[in-house]
Amino acid sequence: MSDNRPEFAFIEWIKNHAPTRPEVLLGIGDDAAILAASPLESVVTKDVIMSGVHFTTDTPLPLVGRKALAVNISDIAAMGARPIAAFIGIVLPKTFSQADAEALYSGLQSLAAEWEITIAGGDTNSWDGPLVISVTLIGHVEAGTAVRRDGAKPGDWICVTGPLGGSLSTGRHLNFIPRVNEALALKSAVSLHAMLDLSDGLGSDLFHILDRSNVGARIFGDAIPIHSDVDQSLSAQDRLNHAISDGEDFEFLFTLSADEGKKLLQSLPSGISVFHIGEITADLGAVLITNEKEHLLTRTGWAHQFGSVPSSAIK
Amino acid sequence: MSDNRPEFAFIEWIKNHAPTRPEVLLGIGDDAAILAASPLESVVTKDVIMSGVHFTTDTPLPLVGRKALAVNISDIAAMGARPIAAFIGIVLPKTFSQADAEALYSGLQSLAAEWEITIAGGDTNSWDGPLVISVTLIGHVEAGTAVRRDGAKPGDWICVTGPLGGSLSTGRHLNFIPRVNEALALKSAVSLHAMLDLSDGLGSDLFHILDRSNVGARIFGDAIPIHSDVDQSLSAQDRLNHAISDGEDFEFLFTLSADEGKKLLQSLPSGISVFHIGEITADLGAVLITNEKEHLLTRTGWAHQFGSVPSSAIK
Repeated sequence: MSDNRPEFAFIEWIKNHAPTRPEVLLGIGDDAAILAASPLESVVTKDVIMSGVHFTTDTPLPLVGRKALAVNISDIAAMGARPIAAFIGIVLPKTFSQADAEALYSGLQSLAAEWEITIAGGDTNSWDGPLVISVTLIGHVEAGTAVRRDGAKPGDWICVTGPLGGSLSTGRHLNFIPRVNEALALKSAVSLHAMLDLSDGLGSDLFHILDRSNVGARIFGDAIPIHSDVDQSLSAQDRLNHAISDGEDFEFLFTLSADEGKKLLQSLPSGISVFHIGEITADLGAVLITNEKEHLLTRTGWAHQFGSVPSSAIK
Repeated sequence: MSDNRPEFAFIEWIKNHAPTRPEVLLGIGDDAAILAASPLESVVTKDVIMSGVHFTTDTPLPLVGRKALAVNISDIAAMGARPIAAFIGIVLPKTFSQADAEALYSGLQSLAAEWEITIAGGDTNSWDGPLVISVTLIGHVEAGTAVRRDGAKPGDWICVTGPLGGSLSTGRHLNFIPRVNEALALKSAVSLHAMLDLSDGLGSDLFHILDRSNVGARIFGDAIPIHSDVDQSLSAQDRLNHAISDGEDFEFLFTLSADEGKKLLQSLPSGISVFHIGEITADLGAVLITNEKEHLLTRTGWAHQFGSVPSSAIK
């Protein structure tokens, strides 16, 4: 990137504001960053967020930057790993000022500092289109201990780390705290079989675990914690719909053996919430139990009693 | 990503077409990919390319996908590393068909297969805006052997791996061969002090090495190889301008001691071209020598004799 392009001043500003950590041997300023050798495994995730899709032109720019990194931290934590180094691709609208670009980056940078993540590289461009931010985040995990989606076993408890629903309508999706501490505390307390972060919503993301583990599930509707962000004036059924379908909760969904689940509830790590909301079955498919009746839960909602409830299409 | 979104079929198609290599323990389909532990260092690069900036709406989609990966392979090779795993962020215009998306990906995938790179993850979205592709590429290198930009020393030879200029006007930037073999052959034949790939043009990229190594340079204008893509009917001076300023050559610029330089020219690795175009000086700044006269070379062109020559603003 040559320094006579308008984004140069911004890139210099980024270099001067990037925290560093020892695993990053060489950060911004070469053809590529260099990460240290180690006895660990690297986990890598990438999410792209775009104006008009994952945020609006009204969203404060520091919150846009924050979210771009937060969703990636959430993915790394959902593997049971620690975030280490981030690579930031930013496509700025030509209408953005240097101050706009710095505001965007400041939200990203302060979250990086909070979790001791080094911004180790990236690519900054400007164009006539809307704002796009692409973050790649690399984490480290002890070899063989990453918590994948394909380890759920029949008889497992299904748990979530917090209440669900209402995230998009209240803006919680812009300032949620990635569940890094929760994931690491759970991983060291018990043997986790499968875990993911709830981005699309329980009713959709659950199937990622079921499909990859080749199992089914029974979900106890009454046990699903509903977030206070969900409109209190709605019917119980509508509130449950929101908890299942809204998405962008970024709480973690995980499974573990019933014995480990009981042990976990009896001695919860400090500051960690766990809600036992169902169980893994050998029978494929997912069943939602509400009011002592069984309903077929599918990616597009749940059938029978309530009719088909479309999952959120906001994203 | 839920499977009722339109990009799902495309993501499935990607999963089924992604080659794998042993360093990638877990690829597409979880919160993050897992890369194997090793005694190596990881090098990481990220480039974003956008419609209307790095390619046009007329560019054949397989060539767009190819370029998105090729520029990243070039960066990894410029560190003296081998490319291992790629993470692809694609923002598709809503007007794109599944066939369009697959055409885009096919160009990327065939280049990945050629260099034995695993597509290990990514994020696919669609929106109302133009096409954006963000590629993150991870490479491996023996610990301590990455070739950085900050190692050039006074007295070093400055060399390039091939002729320069005319890449954008002829479309060569869309199908160039990343100089992986050249970089690895050079690295094993001699002791390289500094290296980068020429993306912005010699007249601009040279300063990345000079600034980071805290040195200057004398460039022999007559020794700069001019690509046959540069219009033959132009004056010698204009042709040299193109070679220095056009950019997107993706040949490598490197420095090494004069002794190593001589040794290299006496026994060039098979299939490798090397042009000795200048020398590193202790005096800061860059001087271009043409017709036995000295001109001050700056990022925006060269001064004195020829007047100011703006560097390419095409990118």
